[in-house]
Amino acid sequence: MPARDFYHDAIKTALIKEGWVITHDPLFLKYGSTEMYVDLGAESVFAAEKGTQKIAVEIKSFIGKSELADFQQALGQYLLYRGILEEVESDRILYLAIRDRVYLDVFESAVGRLISEKHHLKLIVFDWQEEEIVLWKE
Amino acid sequence: MPARDFYHDAIKTALIKEGWVITHDPLFLKYGSTEMYVDLGAESVFAAEKGTQKIAVEIKSFIGKSELADFQQALGQYLLYRGILEEVESDRILYLAIRDRVYLDVFESAVGRLISEKHHLKLIVFDWQEEEIVLWKE
Repeated sequence: MPARDFYHDAIKTALIKEGWVITHDPLFLKYGSTEMYVDLGAESVFAAEKGTQKIAVEIKSFIGKSELADFQQALGQYLLYRGILEEVESDRILYLAIRDRVYLDVFESAVGRLISEKHHLKLIVFDWQEEEIVLWKE
Repeated sequence: MPARDFYHDAIKTALIKEGWVITHDPLFLKYGSTEMYVDLGAESVFAAEKGTQKIAVEIKSFIGKSELADFQQALGQYLLYRGILEEVESDRILYLAIRDRVYLDVFESAVGRLISEKHHLKLIVFDWQEEEIVLWKE
């Protein structure tokens, strides 16, 4: 299993505060002979007619030496996991969880906006110290 | 500028052998305030009616400790550069250059095939020791 992301507990607490139940920590994925772990799986029961909503959450710290390299890695990981989820559990929606500062610096830059829109990235933006979600970006 | 990829000279020689002219080494890209370097830019004049064909080539070694992490990084980097090329130089086609062994081990695995097809990755597969291209995968 991978090393826990630095912000793992903060995003977990933030999700629970919003009424999500953490069902997988981590969420195991397998496709062919390749095994992977997405950081979290969670469920929430909304209005009865909507049924249960299921998400998978991959948390990215962006603490590498280059924001651009971190962005490439996050993009590749997100699209890999999403591609596999579409095959094995298509009703579970994948989110990339990032800190508010990373959202503003990287995902709201010209390159970040361009690529996020091209690939329809779904983001959870969180305040690490307050352990709260500040934005769900679809 | 980034450190040169371990296989830089091999793929360059292989392209020249096939009649390509290396025009950029590296190829500079800028979008917003973000600056990037793709490993190579090359051109080839085919049948006159087709005009000049332009490519960009990003070379990936896959010498990290995890093939899956290397694949994620390569995927993210490829899709980032392709997304920017579509905006700034849409007639230049981006290829990811990988060794034949990496192609078989990673890109021909179940996950590799799934993701390559979903994102229409274009690959140049080369034999490092012979310095020859063995496959153009569209």
